[in-house]
Amino acid sequence: MVNFDYWTPTRLVFGKDVVREKLVETMRPLGKRVLMTYGGGSIKKIGLYDLVKDLLKDFEIFELPGIEPNPKYDPSVLEGVRICKEQKIDVILAVGGGSVLDCSKAIAAGAYYDGEAWDLISYKVKAQKALPIVDIITLAATGSEYDCGGVITNTAINDKRGYMNALLYPVASFMDPTYTFTVPAKHTAAGTADAINHMMEQYFCASPNDISDGFLETLIKTLMKWVSVAMKEPDNYEARAELMYACTFGCNGILAMGTGGSGWPMHAIEHALSAYYDITHGVGLAIITPRWMKHVLSEKTMERFVKFGKNIYGITEGTDKEIAEQVIDRTYKFFESIDIPMHLREVGIDESRVGEMAHHVASIDHLENCPFAPLSEQDIAEIVTASL
Amino acid sequence: MVNFDYWTPTRLVFGKDVVREKLVETMRPLGKRVLMTYGGGSIKKIGLYDLVKDLLKDFEIFELPGIEPNPKYDPSVLEGVRICKEQKIDVILAVGGGSVLDCSKAIAAGAYYDGEAWDLISYKVKAQKALPIVDIITLAATGSEYDCGGVITNTAINDKRGYMNALLYPVASFMDPTYTFTVPAKHTAAGTADAINHMMEQYFCASPNDISDGFLETLIKTLMKWVSVAMKEPDNYEARAELMYACTFGCNGILAMGTGGSGWPMHAIEHALSAYYDITHGVGLAIITPRWMKHVLSEKTMERFVKFGKNIYGITEGTDKEIAEQVIDRTYKFFESIDIPMHLREVGIDESRVGEMAHHVASIDHLENCPFAPLSEQDIAEIVTASL
Repeated sequence: MVNFDYWTPTRLVFGKDVVREKLVETMRPLGKRVLMTYGGGSIKKIGLYDLVKDLLKDFEIFELPGIEPNPKYDPSVLEGVRICKEQKIDVILAVGGGSVLDCSKAIAAGAYYDGEAWDLISYKVKAQKALPIVDIITLAATGSEYDCGGVITNTAINDKRGYMNALLYPVASFMDPTYTFTVPAKHTAAGTADAINHMMEQYFCASPNDISDGFLETLIKTLMKWVSVAMKEPDNYEARAELMYACTFGCNGILAMGTGGSGWPMHAIEHALSAYYDITHGVGLAIITPRWMKHVLSEKTMERFVKFGKNIYGITEGTDKEIAEQVIDRTYKFFESIDIPMHLREVGIDESRVGEMAHHVASIDHLENCPFAPLSEQDIAEIVTASL
Repeated sequence: MVNFDYWTPTRLVFGKDVVREKLVETMRPLGKRVLMTYGGGSIKKIGLYDLVKDLLKDFEIFELPGIEPNPKYDPSVLEGVRICKEQKIDVILAVGGGSVLDCSKAIAAGAYYDGEAWDLISYKVKAQKALPIVDIITLAATGSEYDCGGVITNTAINDKRGYMNALLYPVASFMDPTYTFTVPAKHTAAGTADAINHMMEQYFCASPNDISDGFLETLIKTLMKWVSVAMKEPDNYEARAELMYACTFGCNGILAMGTGGSGWPMHAIEHALSAYYDITHGVGLAIITPRWMKHVLSEKTMERFVKFGKNIYGITEGTDKEIAEQVIDRTYKFFESIDIPMHLREVGIDESRVGEMAHHVASIDHLENCPFAPLSEQDIAEIVTASL
C-alpha cells in the first residue's frame, strides 16, 4: 500500500429539504455579504433560487448568473473576482452543478489575489487565502462538492486546466436529490458517465488495494444500475439519491487512498476536446473510454481488465484476453445504452485539429509518466482518431 | 435513502515513516506545551517513544503513561485533566491504541470544563471547547483515529459509556502499519473482531443502500482476509496496512451515510460485560456476535442475513433460512479460527451477574428502539446467557 495524506473537511448535508432546514444556520457564521453564483437559470425553474433568496433575506446577496458548462475564465471567473473585491464579499454560495462550483472555487481564490487569477489556476502562483464556499449541488456528476479542485477553460489560449488547493474545500455541500429530478435524461447520462470515468481512472491507473478496489467497484456498479432508472423515472428519489451520493466520492482522494494516485489520462485527453470544441465533458469521456481501454490493453495491463470484468460485469467465462475484450465491448455498449453519442463526429469534432490537441495534451499532462500505460503524443492522437 | 449530515475533518497521514516525515510540521502550529499520553509501555519497546521525544525536542512535553485497556475515568481521565489544567497544555499527543486515544479525547474536553469531567462523558453537560488532539495509532481496531467519540469506564459505578462530540475529531492521525508489527496475534485478532463488529452493526441495523452495503462488505471481507495473514506473519506490511486502513472507517459515520444509523446492540451489550468484568472489548464482541445473530434471526430480518451470506461468504446454495443459519455458523467459526475464546466463561464471566448487566444495558441503551430487532431486558439476558 502506498503512503497517503488525506484530508476532506467538507460537511455533507444530504437529503430532502436540507436546504430549508440547515442553510441559514450554516451561512450565518460565515458572514453577511454573499456572492450567489449560478448557471443558466434552471435553479429559477425549480424554485431553488426563490427559496434561497427567501431563506437568506437577512443577508446581503450579490449575484453572478450565467456561469457556463465548462466554465470560462473570461468572463465568469474574472467577473466573480471583480464583484468579490468591489463588494467585500464574505462568502460564496454556489448553486448549481459542478461547473458553477468549479468556477466559484476559482473566484474564491482570486478574490484574495492581486494579480491575474489565471496565475493561481495555472499554478504559476499558489493561492494563500480564499473565501469560504457553501454550495447547493443540483447535478450528480463531478464530485466538486467534496473536493478542493476545479476545471476552468481559458478560451483565449484553448486551455482547460484542472487545479487544486486545500483552501478550496467547500465548508458545506447541500445535496438534495429532489433538485436533480428535472435534470434531462441526456445530462443525467453525461453526469453519470463523468463520475464513472472518475472511478475508472482510479481503478485502472493505480496500485490497487482490496479496499480501494471494493469501494470503486461498488460505486461503478451503483452508478451503472441507477442511471437508467433515473433516466426513465426522473423523479425516482432512490435512484437520484444513489447517483448523487456515489458521484460525491469521485475526486476527493478517498478512492485513491493507498493506491498512489494516477495520471487520469482520459480526463487529460477530454479536457483538450472540450477546450477546443466546448463539448459536454461526460460525453467526451464516455466516447474516449473504450478507445483508451483498447489502446492500452496489453499483457501488462490485462489483470486489471480481468478483475474489472469479473467484478463489474460478472464475466466468468473465457480466457483473460477474451474477458478483457468483453470489458471494452460492454463498456462501449453501456454508454451507448444510456444514449450517449459514441463518436466524436456526432458532437462536431473531426480530424482537423487532432494533432494540435494531442500536442497540447502531451505538453501539459505528461501522460508518458502514467505508470499503468504511458501515452506519447502519438498514442494520444491515435486514441482521439479512433474516437472520431 | 435516509438524510444525513456528515463531517470528518481529521487528516489521515498513513504509511511507513510518516511520523518522522510529518509529525513536527503538524504539531508546530498547535502549540508548544504537549501532553503525551500512552499506555503500558509498548511504545517504548518499539522505539516510538524515543522517536517522538527526539522529534519534539523543541516542545515542552508532559506525560500521562499507563492508560489502561478499557480506559478508566479514575485515574486516567482525571489525572490527564489535572495535568492539562495545571500545566496549561496546548495540545494532546496520544500515542497508542484506541484506549489511549479515547481517554485523550475525554481529557481534551475535560481540560476546559470546571466541573466533573464525567458530566461531559455522560452527556449531562455538552462540552463547548476542547484541546486539539494529534495521535499516532499503534493498533488496528477501534477507528477512534477517525471519529469524534470514545468509550470510558467508570468503575465506581460499573458504567462504560460511549460519548461523542464534534470537537473531538483528532486534528491529524498518524498511521504507520509498521508500528503494529509487534502486536501479538491475540490482540491482532481482538482488534480485528472489534472492527468487523463495527461493520456488522452498521450492516444489519440500518436501512441499507447500495453504497453503504458495498463499502461494508468490502471492509468486512478485507478484514477477514488479512487478519489471519497478519497473525501468521506479524511483519507483513500489506496485511498490517489493509487492517489498519479498514479499521479506520469503523465509527466515523461514513458507512452509515444514508442508512439512518442504528442502535449498535452488540456494542451496548459488550460494554456492560467489559464494565463489569474488564474483558477485552473485541473478544466480548466476537463472543456475542453469533449469539445475537441467532437471537434476532426471523422472517423479518432474514433478508439481511442472506445478502451477508452471499456477499461475504459466497454462499449460493440453500433456502434463505439455510443460508442465514450458515451465516451464523460461519461467523462463529471465523472468530474461532482466529483463536478467540468463544465462550464468556473462558474470559471469567459466569451467570451470577447476567440479570444485573441486562438491566444495566436495558436502562441505558434502550435497545427496545432498535428498528432491525428490538431487544428487551429479557432478550439481552438470553443473549448473554447463550454466550456463556
